[in-house]
Amino acid sequence: MQAMTTTTRRYTLSLSCPDRVGIVAAVSNFLAAHCGWITEASHHADTESQMFFMRQELLADSLTLDIDALRAEFAKIAEPFDMKWRISDSARKKRVVILVSKQEHCLYDLLGRWQSGELDIDIPCVISNHETFRGLVEWHGIPFHHVPVTPDNKAAAYAEVERLYREAEGDVMVLARYMQILSPDLCEKFPGQIINIHHSFLPSFVGAKPYHQAFKRGVKLIGATCHYVTSDLDEGPIIEQDVIRIDHSDVPEELVRSGKDVEKAVLARGLRYHLEDRVLIDGNKTVVFR
Amino acid sequence: MQAMTTTTRRYTLSLSCPDRVGIVAAVSNFLAAHCGWITEASHHADTESQMFFMRQELLADSLTLDIDALRAEFAKIAEPFDMKWRISDSARKKRVVILVSKQEHCLYDLLGRWQSGELDIDIPCVISNHETFRGLVEWHGIPFHHVPVTPDNKAAAYAEVERLYREAEGDVMVLARYMQILSPDLCEKFPGQIINIHHSFLPSFVGAKPYHQAFKRGVKLIGATCHYVTSDLDEGPIIEQDVIRIDHSDVPEELVRSGKDVEKAVLARGLRYHLEDRVLIDGNKTVVFR
Amino acid sequence: MQAMTTTTRRYTLSLSCPDRVGIVAAVSNFLAAHCGWITEASHHADTESQMFFMRQELLADSLTLDIDALRAEFAKIAEPFDMKWRISDSARKKRVVILVSKQEHCLYDLLGRWQSGELDIDIPCVISNHETFRGLVEWHGIPFHHVPVTPDNKAAAYAEVERLYREAEGDVMVLARYMQILSPDLCEKFPGQIINIHHSFLPSFVGAKPYHQAFKRGVKLIGATCHYVTSDLDEGPIIEQDVIRIDHSDVPEELVRSGKDVEKAVLARGLRYHLEDRVLIDGNKTVVFR
Amino acid sequence: MQAMTTTTRRYTLSLSCPDRVGIVAAVSNFLAAHCGWITEASHHADTESQMFFMRQELLADSLTLDIDALRAEFAKIAEPFDMKWRISDSARKKRVVILVSKQEHCLYDLLGRWQSGELDIDIPCVISNHETFRGLVEWHGIPFHHVPVTPDNKAAAYAEVERLYREAEGDVMVLARYMQILSPDLCEKFPGQIINIHHSFLPSFVGAKPYHQAFKRGVKLIGATCHYVTSDLDEGPIIEQDVIRIDHSDVPEELVRSGKDVEKAVLARGLRYHLEDRVLIDGNKTVVFR
Repeated sequence: MQAMTTTTRRYTLSLSCPDRVGIVAAVSNFLAAHCGWITEASHHADTESQMFFMRQELLADSLTLDIDALRAEFAKIAEPFDMKWRISDSARKKRVVILVSKQEHCLYDLLGRWQSGELDIDIPCVISNHETFRGLVEWHGIPFHHVPVTPDNKAAAYAEVERLYREAEGDVMVLARYMQILSPDLCEKFPGQIINIHHSFLPSFVGAKPYHQAFKRGVKLIGATCHYVTSDLDEGPIIEQDVIRIDHSDVPEELVRSGKDVEKAVLARGLRYHLEDRVLIDGNKTVVFR
Repeated sequence: MQAMTTTTRRYTLSLSCPDRVGIVAAVSNFLAAHCGWITEASHHADTESQMFFMRQELLADSLTLDIDALRAEFAKIAEPFDMKWRISDSARKKRVVILVSKQEHCLYDLLGRWQSGELDIDIPCVISNHETFRGLVEWHGIPFHHVPVTPDNKAAAYAEVERLYREAEGDVMVLARYMQILSPDLCEKFPGQIINIHHSFLPSFVGAKPYHQAFKRGVKLIGATCHYVTSDLDEGPIIEQDVIRIDHSDVPEELVRSGKDVEKAVLARGLRYHLEDRVLIDGNKTVVFR
Repeated sequence: MQAMTTTTRRYTLSLSCPDRVGIVAAVSNFLAAHCGWITEASHHADTESQMFFMRQELLADSLTLDIDALRAEFAKIAEPFDMKWRISDSARKKRVVILVSKQEHCLYDLLGRWQSGELDIDIPCVISNHETFRGLVEWHGIPFHHVPVTPDNKAAAYAEVERLYREAEGDVMVLARYMQILSPDLCEKFPGQIINIHHSFLPSFVGAKPYHQAFKRGVKLIGATCHYVTSDLDEGPIIEQDVIRIDHSDVPEELVRSGKDVEKAVLARGLRYHLEDRVLIDGNKTVVFR
Repeated sequence: MQAMTTTTRRYTLSLSCPDRVGIVAAVSNFLAAHCGWITEASHHADTESQMFFMRQELLADSLTLDIDALRAEFAKIAEPFDMKWRISDSARKKRVVILVSKQEHCLYDLLGRWQSGELDIDIPCVISNHETFRGLVEWHGIPFHHVPVTPDNKAAAYAEVERLYREAEGDVMVLARYMQILSPDLCEKFPGQIINIHHSFLPSFVGAKPYHQAFKRGVKLIGATCHYVTSDLDEGPIIEQDVIRIDHSDVPEELVRSGKDVEKAVLARGLRYHLEDRVLIDGNKTVVFR
């Protein structure tokens, strides 16, 4: 796939709609009529849900329309097919709000990728229920908000998280090993916008202490799962997963250590797919065009 | 590790006992006293179960004792440590009875490995609830027993399986995608002797149609699990697992196809570990010395 | 991806041509005009070679044209774009000629996949420079040809291989660990039709005894490479590769054993991609639409 | 394996010597005589080099000797076997000097692991030929030394690197994508102490721009190699390797991005093995006891 850091401006069209003949032709025709130079194109027809999914990446300069006109014109194509669609512009960086607790691995990983430009995003702020990483975050020039969460203040705390996210004009909220369960209310307000990394190969070992569960069961691989957060804990659409081999000699502390490496890699990949509009939600599953 | 096909005769000592100081010294001393040339040695102390596990591979010709004397002498070492132990002799091929239904992949795989000598075993017979593979098995010069299993004859059928296994003097029974659930009675008669390949990454997707379950959940990897059979379905000690990447475009039939490749590889590895006395059972888990 | 064994008849259009605006639209339009229901579609633009690659899978019954008319009509689209193209029909099984020597693993693997219908192909014959597998092959009802190869008869031997392949009306020749180097002449006569499995992760360890080379270098992973055969030994376009972890304790015989598992898996995947017209050659590289 | 962060004090004995009968017994006896509680033990006999390798991890408190006495006593065992040996003490943190240029991924990764205590090391300083990471390093409270390297000042620059390393009392020097080739002189002064991460799956793609070489060859996996530095560029003993899947759509910039994830994971694993005395050098190969 094209690197995110490629400097050429691109538009990315992604859409889903009920499947029928003629969708590809209609879209391709439309793009050709406006001289759109397609650098990547992916389709998928889900035979079970009877839905069709498409993603097209275009060189912005090849088009005879500007992005507003493109969107206005495309709306006419989309309407008869009942499409849900979006056109993203690589010239506008996405705004990623990171939530973190006291574990460092995903945060360091994301900051490193942001620092080098590999992740071509803005990080308007980091929110944490602990002060642990204030120094590191602020050293990077990123605002840090400490929002403590206690058994008694959850409603207020999540209201504050929501306020900060809206204030930051966030496009996506990343739970980078944020060890709190968001309220169902918050989850439902931002469907397909909240990304979590769970430290097991779901659906195995839902809930707390998955590495200890894995140790007890004696599995030979452990994993991590990047998924959209819904109000059903650990049940949202899966974006990416991976595993690593362990053996009988690995105590739970060792599983935690090995697992961190998988977690940060899986979160980084899942987030990138999301940021590049490669992930389309299909009920409780995802289509990931890589 | 040493190849199984290495022609040099070897003895393999494997043992487990409650952990304490001095086990390694006692065993090493014993072996050194009899001039045992150790080609492989592995230990493991399970800090949870407080058990100690050991495996030693020796060049048979280096010893000043024959195998019977070796066993008699070692029994004296083992007794004060309360060891469960075994000494295998590479000169005696293990006898593997294969159970199969109508899927070919594990059977072809095992026959190929046996034909080439990679698996240095005897296959005294293949048992199946279908006639499908009689020709292939008999062409290889291996007796084939058709033992139909119906809802009404299960007790009699499994009695017949047991009879055939005992008659064949089997050391291990391999369920090579044998699509029947053995009776608890049979499972309990042969603990640590019956090896199954389950077509999911356990503990995910226990029971029937795991690939369809995986498809429905939208996971991004599917797997297979080789485990000892106990009377708890799909809950026995896991020997080996592996996974393969899938994506949204893979329909359940495709998962079945991809999964077969993982199944046969995982079964072959798990079986080999077992045959080489690399697997020691630790409660509902395994120690696998590779 | 769609399973090969899916019984619905499909046409697969694959093409390559110099990249320019309008290719996708022209093809999509054409297919829509003839009511083609697209079940899979993939594109790729190679920014280096400036070539465009496309693959479309269609439900045969959705089209208003039969396959001959489809080909005739499509030729008119293809001509102005200077396309190299092909339309395959799933109703016509491809004919795969297998060449083998004395190692069993790839042969058993392919025969098992063919026997179960997973590989929906015809195997008109197996050719070998040894008699080893005559019995197994003939038991499967497949003609077996023994074509000995000696230092002195190579020209005649490869002429005979060619004759048998032509007589069998082969679509693809698979070197399933055929331990002979085909003549440059034969390689050049069938570009993109001869598939080899090399027992190393190319470009490492070209030539003879790659596992021994790997052992000597002390690598921590070994691999296998499925590639099209050209007259440059082990230098043809790579279709598929994979690796497996080894460690210091693995002697060369063990590498050979582990490697066989990778070889047969990689060959089976590469062959399947080829058979499903997923592989398009791009100079000395391949585009593989999965 | 045991987690490095386990707080219980441990001694690690590692040794190599010509192989013969009685080594294990001698060492085990010695340890048992001093009541050493062994938590991990690994052996390896290299049949080619005829060398024997051993690693034992002991609970420090279980011993009746202090570490100086242990070393003095063990020397008597080691002498007749001509052992090269070392006893490490987990209570003494190893001192890791990091060399870096302008790429961030390995540095962020190592700093994150150090910050969290996962790597239980001291980082006495970071040395770089660029100023890029002074801020980040110093924010972590670690001294940063800018040692520019130009075509004209190499001898002086590497003399300064050596001076800083000695001044820091470094145990190991990590080239965390340090884009300079150390002088042979420096390499030879610190055998088995300098660890590099090379951005290819060696021995493929030695030297400069390996990802571009990989792109040109059309491989389907790319990798990284952690190895000891010797005066032969990219030819030193390999400690750890891994790969990641790519496809035709990945341009070189994308390979660089994907590869970084492998590089940092492989370096972190290789470094940890080294720090835990799991790596023993066997000619130009390594024994890695995991």
